[in-house]
Amino acid sequence: MAELKIELISIGDEILIGHTLDTNSNWIANKLASNGLRLRWLSVIGDNDSDLKHQLKRAWNRADIILLTGGLGPTHDDITRPVIAKFFEDEIVTKPEILADLRERFAKRGLEMPANAEIMAEFPKRAKAIRNNHGAAPGIQYNIGEQKLFAMPGVPREMKGMFDDFILPIITSLGDSTYKLKLIQTAGTGESHLEELIGSLSGIEPVQLAFLPSIDHGVTLRISMAANDIDLVEEKLDNALKYISQRIDRYIYAFGGISLEETLIGILRQRGMRLALAESCTGGLVADRIVSVPGSSDVFDRGFVTYSNESKIVMLGINPEIIEKHGAVSSETALAMAESAKDHAGVDIAASVTGIAGPTGGSPEKPVGLVYIAVADKNGSDVKRFRFTGDRQDNRSRSAFSVLVKLWQRLKSE
Amino acid sequence: MAELKIELISIGDEILIGHTLDTNSNWIANKLASNGLRLRWLSVIGDNDSDLKHQLKRAWNRADIILLTGGLGPTHDDITRPVIAKFFEDEIVTKPEILADLRERFAKRGLEMPANAEIMAEFPKRAKAIRNNHGAAPGIQYNIGEQKLFAMPGVPREMKGMFDDFILPIITSLGDSTYKLKLIQTAGTGESHLEELIGSLSGIEPVQLAFLPSIDHGVTLRISMAANDIDLVEEKLDNALKYISQRIDRYIYAFGGISLEETLIGILRQRGMRLALAESCTGGLVADRIVSVPGSSDVFDRGFVTYSNESKIVMLGINPEIIEKHGAVSSETALAMAESAKDHAGVDIAASVTGIAGPTGGSPEKPVGLVYIAVADKNGSDVKRFRFTGDRQDNRSRSAFSVLVKLWQRLKSE
Repeated sequence: MAELKIELISIGDEILIGHTLDTNSNWIANKLASNGLRLRWLSVIGDNDSDLKHQLKRAWNRADIILLTGGLGPTHDDITRPVIAKFFEDEIVTKPEILADLRERFAKRGLEMPANAEIMAEFPKRAKAIRNNHGAAPGIQYNIGEQKLFAMPGVPREMKGMFDDFILPIITSLGDSTYKLKLIQTAGTGESHLEELIGSLSGIEPVQLAFLPSIDHGVTLRISMAANDIDLVEEKLDNALKYISQRIDRYIYAFGGISLEETLIGILRQRGMRLALAESCTGGLVADRIVSVPGSSDVFDRGFVTYSNESKIVMLGINPEIIEKHGAVSSETALAMAESAKDHAGVDIAASVTGIAGPTGGSPEKPVGLVYIAVADKNGSDVKRFRFTGDRQDNRSRSAFSVLVKLWQRLKSE
Repeated sequence: MAELKIELISIGDEILIGHTLDTNSNWIANKLASNGLRLRWLSVIGDNDSDLKHQLKRAWNRADIILLTGGLGPTHDDITRPVIAKFFEDEIVTKPEILADLRERFAKRGLEMPANAEIMAEFPKRAKAIRNNHGAAPGIQYNIGEQKLFAMPGVPREMKGMFDDFILPIITSLGDSTYKLKLIQTAGTGESHLEELIGSLSGIEPVQLAFLPSIDHGVTLRISMAANDIDLVEEKLDNALKYISQRIDRYIYAFGGISLEETLIGILRQRGMRLALAESCTGGLVADRIVSVPGSSDVFDRGFVTYSNESKIVMLGINPEIIEKHGAVSSETALAMAESAKDHAGVDIAASVTGIAGPTGGSPEKPVGLVYIAVADKNGSDVKRFRFTGDRQDNRSRSAFSVLVKLWQRLKSE
C-alpha cells in the first residue's frame, strides 16, 4: 500500500470570520507528522450544508482517510451529523445505547439531562459512535470499503481525547508509514548564516531540507524523506542529520519537540543552579515561558517585573544615579538589574531585560526596538544590545526569546 | 451584485506538518469580516504543483476573488509563481522594472544583490506585480473578466502590508458589503447561563446569534446578518445588540476587538489608579497580558513573580507563619500576597494568584487545579477559590484570565 492520503475538513463559521484561530488542525497535523503520517489536504468550511457536501464529495474521491472537526453539538448550527448521513445515504435514528450513556453521565454529576441533549442520541444508522470522554457529543465513524471517515467535535479537549484514544491507533495500523521527518532546532543566528555554514546540499540527497524561522523559537531545520523502504528512510535521515549537525553544532539547542526554555531548565537542573529574572519591557513574558515548563520550580526562584523606574530602584535596590545618568534603557541599567536580581534572590544566575517595545517612548538616540539584555553569575556579568524593528508584540517576543538565548549561551560556555 | 465569493488558498508544507500555525488565514479572515466581507472557503495546500493546480481550478470555478499566501520566494520549493502562470496559460519573463526595483532596494541598504534574488524578477507576463514594502518578493495580480486573483508572500509582515495597502482597497470597492457582524464580549459567567438570561431568540430574528467561549477572553457573543439592504442589516443588528445587552449587562466588558486587559487599563487610567501584581502559579502571565497593551506603563507599576516560598516571604514580606500554617496555596497566603504587594509597591490596587498548575504537586486536600485569587485596595481585600480541571497550560491561562476578571469586577463595583 502506498502512502495514506489523509484529508482534514474543519467546520465552523467562527474560523472563516477570523474569530477562532484553527489550532485543532495544527494539532492534528502535528500528531500525524510525529507518527510518520502526512496530512495531504486541509480545508475549512462554514456552517453551510452545501459547502460541506461538496467538500465531502471531493475528499471521498481522493483521500483514504477523511477527518472532520466541529459541528457535532446539539444546536441548530451543528450540521455535521445530518450532512454526513445524507452524503452516505444513511438515515438518522435514535440510538438507545447513546441515550443511556448520556443519561448515565448526567446522573453521575447529579444533573437532570436537558431536553436539547437528547438530540445527540440521534445518530446515523450505519455509523459507529466514538465515545467522547470529555464531553457529550459522540464522534462518528464510517468504514466503507478501504476508506474511513471520522467526525470529531470542535472543542479542542474533546477532539484531542477522541483522536488520541480511538482514531490515531486505527490510522497508524493502516498502511506503511513512509514519510519521516526530523527537526534540528537552533538559536543565536539567522537562516542565511545557517545556510552558508551547511553549504552544498549534495551531501544529504535525496533528503529534503527546509528552514523554518520563528521569532519565539529560533530557526528550526526540517529534514524529511518519503520512500517505501523505511530502513532506507531512517538511514538517509540519520546521515543527513549528522552532516548538518557537524556544520552548525554551536547553534543547536534541541532535536524536535523541545523548547529552548526546557533545554535551559534541563541544564540548570543538572548543575543544581537556581535562576532569577528581572524584566522591564517583556513584563513577565520570560518568567511565563520558564514557568510554563512543568517542574520549573526546581530551578526558577523568582521574577522581578520592574516596569516603573521606581520599582527598579526599590525592588532591586539599584543605585538611582545609574538610571538618572544612563536612563532606564541602557547597558548600565541592564547590568545593574541582572546583578541585583542575582544578589537579592541569592541565586546562581540571573538575567535582565530593559528596552523600548513601542509604539511610543522612542527617541532619536533611543529608538523603539532598542533592547539591552544582561546575564550575571559567579563569573561576572555581560550585556548585549539589540535593535528590533517590529511592532510592540513582536519586539517583546523577540526580546523574551533573546533572554533565553543569552542565558543558554552563557551556560554552554561555562 | 450579490455577495462577493472569496476563497483563500494557503500554501506551504510547514502548515500541513503542523510546524506552523496558519495565523495568516486567521488574520485575513478577520480583516475581511471587519470590512463587511466574508471568507467563504479556505484551504491549505502543500508545496505540491498538482494539488495547487487542482485547488486553483476549483476556486476559479466558484469564487469571485481568489487570495493565495505563501510559496512566492526565490527557492526551489516556492511553487506559486510557475503554477499560477501555467494555470492561466501565461509565460514567465524577466520583468526589467522588477529587476531595477530589486537592485535599488539592495543598493539602498548598501548590499550587493545576491544571484538567487534575480529569480524574483522572473514574473508571469500578463500579471501585474504588487509592490512588497516589507520584503523582496512582489505579489501577483491577475484580472480576468469579473474575477481577480491575488498571490501574496507567506511572511506575515509582508503579506499584511500588501493586503492592507493594495488588495483590501480593491476588494472593498467591488460589490456590496452585505454581511455584517457585531461582537459582545463577556466575562464572569458561562455560556449556558448567558443563554438562559437572554431567553427566547424571537426578539432578535432574523439576526443570528452564536456563543464563542474562550479560556483567555471569556464568552464572546457574535450577532450577524446578511442581506442586500445594508440599512436594514444595520438596524436589525443594532436592535439585537440592545436586546441582548439589556439582559446580560453586568457580564459585558467590551463590544468587539478590545481585550479585558485593555478594558481594565482604561478604567485604571480614568481613575488615576496604579496596579501591582503578585503571581505564583501564573508566573508572570498576568503581568505579560497587562504589559502587552501599549501605554500600560501609565497604570502598571510592578509585578512580583514569587515562585518559591522563600521569595514570597522575602519579596513581599509575608509573615512566614502564614505560609507555614496554611500552605503557599491557601486563601490566607493569597490575601497576604495581595495586601503586601499593594503596600510594598505603594499602589492603589493589587491582585495575587497562587495555585497548583500541575501536572504534579497536588494532594487529596489540595488537588491540581486549586487556585486562590485575591484583590486588595483601599476598601479592603477579598479572595476567591477556583478549581480548574485542565492541564498545566490550561490551568495557568484560566488563572490569569480569572485575575483580570476579579480586578475588573472589583473596579466596576466601586
